[in-house]
Amino acid sequence: MRVVETVSELKLIRNQISGNIGFVPTMGYLHEGHLELVRQAKAANDITIASIFVNPTQFGPKEDFEKYPRDAEGDLSLLKGVGTDYIFMPATIDIYPPGFNSWVDVEGVTGHLEGAARPGHFRGVATVVAKLFNIVRPSRAYFGQKDAQQCVVIKKMVKDLEMPLDIIIVPTVREPDGLAMSSRNVYLTAEMRRQAPVLHRSLKLAQKLWDSGEKDASTIRREMTELIHKQPLANIEYISIADADTLEELAILRTAILISMVVRFGHTRLLDNIILV
Amino acid sequence: MRVVETVSELKLIRNQISGNIGFVPTMGYLHEGHLELVRQAKAANDITIASIFVNPTQFGPKEDFEKYPRDAEGDLSLLKGVGTDYIFMPATIDIYPPGFNSWVDVEGVTGHLEGAARPGHFRGVATVVAKLFNIVRPSRAYFGQKDAQQCVVIKKMVKDLEMPLDIIIVPTVREPDGLAMSSRNVYLTAEMRRQAPVLHRSLKLAQKLWDSGEKDASTIRREMTELIHKQPLANIEYISIADADTLEELAILRTAILISMVVRFGHTRLLDNIILV
Repeated sequence: MRVVETVSELKLIRNQISGNIGFVPTMGYLHEGHLELVRQAKAANDITIASIFVNPTQFGPKEDFEKYPRDAEGDLSLLKGVGTDYIFMPATIDIYPPGFNSWVDVEGVTGHLEGAARPGHFRGVATVVAKLFNIVRPSRAYFGQKDAQQCVVIKKMVKDLEMPLDIIIVPTVREPDGLAMSSRNVYLTAEMRRQAPVLHRSLKLAQKLWDSGEKDASTIRREMTELIHKQPLANIEYISIADADTLEELAILRTAILISMVVRFGHTRLLDNIILV
Repeated sequence: MRVVETVSELKLIRNQISGNIGFVPTMGYLHEGHLELVRQAKAANDITIASIFVNPTQFGPKEDFEKYPRDAEGDLSLLKGVGTDYIFMPATIDIYPPGFNSWVDVEGVTGHLEGAARPGHFRGVATVVAKLFNIVRPSRAYFGQKDAQQCVVIKKMVKDLEMPLDIIIVPTVREPDGLAMSSRNVYLTAEMRRQAPVLHRSLKLAQKLWDSGEKDASTIRREMTELIHKQPLANIEYISIADADTLEELAILRTAILISMVVRFGHTRLLDNIILV
């Protein structure tokens, strides 16, 4: 495993690689969900490159960029454990040098959900991912289904702009009690952590309703809401029942459906989702 | 020479090419300026690809997209004459399929000059050029200095987003009387055409003033304006005297300076520029 700390060094290394590259972009503070991305990248490619970069442009001014959890030493140990070939850890100023001012905007699918709740978030995501793709030039890049809208945005960007790689979406990895793995779970108090699996339980309830033939979005949303409200620390920010490709909200369900949600525990926004087909 | 009419076919061809590709993106209606780009591409690369695509997204709603001059047969003959290997001529719907909605925005340097006069123009340019780069994956792409701000925007995009190619800027090719070659020169009446070389004469005057030590932008602009106003059909839209990298207007000249201008003859906007170093 080799750690690469500058764009220029990674470009030199890249020019020496002739096989397929599997790329796993991350913001660090890694958990089992990230490691699963690396495992899949290793299984399907000659070389695996993971990046660790807490991307300032995808955080709003009042968001948690400064206090976003960081643990470089732990991350490197985990990535070594799963056999990552290269870790790319650039400095912020190397990705955003003075005068940087070119941006990738994916419109339409970013007008909903996280894009509506966090203005500018997906502009920052799309821009840094496009830049990392240009530096790493992978054959395949791996993203977790947990960030469902991010997956839709990245796939749309790659398709619209004909970026020469495949996007592989990997199912959400969960704790034994169903909570989706997330770097932000560390923000939860013990009591919040005990209540947080209700997100996954509410999605399983939606799946059960769908399987029994329920097609009415308001019925599904009401049942999910009632279940979640049994947890006193849970505050629902949104429950979206939308077309899985366009992210347009639906009143009557038809395949494929993305049910995605944000539930706040204190200041911490927990995301989870399920696709119904 | 092979003509390729779809994105999917060009991608198949591209995957068979292992050498360096020189790429010349054009909007067709080719003249000697374009051919010079192809010649330079041929001299420095294994394979030369030119594209012909009148890009609708870089035209404003009241601009000349519909009546922009087109001559596919003549273009192919000219490109064959200079030994182009592949001509990429995609349909509009192949570049902008239904639902297309991902854009590249270069901010800052697009706030001036043509970017100010033509809102959205450079968003369209940057987006289509980024997409063509992803499809063609060239080692080098060639642009004419005649479109000075376009050169600045493309170079900035490539640098900011680390696109893996070099941008080569080729000096403006001129008619014997000094008029910069442009597909839009065909719009000029005989009398306009007779007066149009005044753009180049005014730039040569600026060069002479600069060479004699003149550093005051308003003096240079005034002398240029007086010269141009001797041609009764010439309407100055702007004369910009700006930093060649940032395109910020300057009152006192320092190197490197871009003097760029638009002079209208009837509805036709003629561009020209000079760099003073």
